[in-house]
Amino acid sequence: MPRPKATPTAALRVELEDRPEAIPAMAASIAAAGGRISTLAAVRRTAGPPARAEIELEVEGLDDEAAMAALRDLDDVADVQLTRELGLIFGKRIIVVGGGAQVAQVALGAVSEADRHNLRGERISVDTIALVGEENIAAAVRAVADLPRARLLVLAGSIMGGDISVAAEELRAVGIPIIALNMVGSITEHVDLVVSDPVQAGTMAVMAIAETATFDLGRQRGRRY
Amino acid sequence: MPRPKATPTAALRVELEDRPEAIPAMAASIAAAGGRISTLAAVRRTAGPPARAEIELEVEGLDDEAAMAALRDLDDVADVQLTRELGLIFGKRIIVVGGGAQVAQVALGAVSEADRHNLRGERISVDTIALVGEENIAAAVRAVADLPRARLLVLAGSIMGGDISVAAEELRAVGIPIIALNMVGSITEHVDLVVSDPVQAGTMAVMAIAETATFDLGRQRGRRY
Repeated sequence: MPRPKATPTAALRVELEDRPEAIPAMAASIAAAGGRISTLAAVRRTAGPPARAEIELEVEGLDDEAAMAALRDLDDVADVQLTRELGLIFGKRIIVVGGGAQVAQVALGAVSEADRHNLRGERISVDTIALVGEENIAAAVRAVADLPRARLLVLAGSIMGGDISVAAEELRAVGIPIIALNMVGSITEHVDLVVSDPVQAGTMAVMAIAETATFDLGRQRGRRY
Repeated sequence: MPRPKATPTAALRVELEDRPEAIPAMAASIAAAGGRISTLAAVRRTAGPPARAEIELEVEGLDDEAAMAALRDLDDVADVQLTRELGLIFGKRIIVVGGGAQVAQVALGAVSEADRHNLRGERISVDTIALVGEENIAAAVRAVADLPRARLLVLAGSIMGGDISVAAEELRAVGIPIIALNMVGSITEHVDLVVSDPVQAGTMAVMAIAETATFDLGRQRGRRY
């Protein structure tokens, strides 16, 4: 999610007593210090005793030292370590959804193109899931809206339509553009760009979100290649 | 993260007034109802007025109705909608890190193999980032420990060692196994399995975490193919 560069952000890994009260206490202490939790993920649990949860936390509005200070004296906090923001490491995400054969070829193009931009200071990751069926794919399209740092979706298959097209419009409405392969079904009427070659589709997907590229998806909207 | 099947889990998209106090209030209300936040991600913000944040939330220990009830009457909550757990959609994650040429080939193998397992009820995604340099790659290896649902790392390059090997041992210590391509440098001494062919490495990575496969990484530990 874009934010002003001036906002300090801290990333921490927190080992907590695994009790319901632990997270509200942490959130309250961070808010009292003037910070705002932007990411919280329970990445691991230990059965114990004592049962503990390892939490990945990102806080906006506090620097590392202030965030550490807000957390380390809490009763339920067993340990706090500084980590690095996932956005700095994995960057913007392109999500590729569809059939295995096509997803693999889109990934080939996208990873190769991301490599070229990441060498020049970009950070773009290419994330994929191979799925079958209208219901599964429509659910995945909708869920892209909930993925942190997802910036563009590529639909890679041979036939898509129905509820997938409905989900595609919902996703575009929250600001995430979609590139689709040229395929059977209504989906090609509900995306920003249609590309026949999967390697080219992956390449264009990366160019569309790279600051290091001069490619404006807005100017290509509705075209087919 | 594995959890007992009996634990109800709710996934929600919450539109909040974007104030520091909003998240602690939400966390407190969920804890009071007996739930525990396992994931929170601020996926979008609107500048407003009023400034709002769209939060993806996953709560353990509450069903959909109880989670909705805990949130919808809070002052700062403008809207709550049920979504689906990201783990049900995108499943377990294989992370592939390294040079573009090799990452693309590992992804080709892994996506094709994931397709075969996902058809039989698995959910495995293949996520990649193409990076160069010891420092960048070591940071990415460490950050895999902070990625939700990351289950295995594939290191795909031609030369890796030094701090990358240190980071590899740290990652294995938190329970995430590593497969590396056969390459120059000390890394091949600090991973669970070494595979020469990148397509095979991607395939084995998926087999190692698929419930639908009979492949035990533990029995292959230290081997080279």
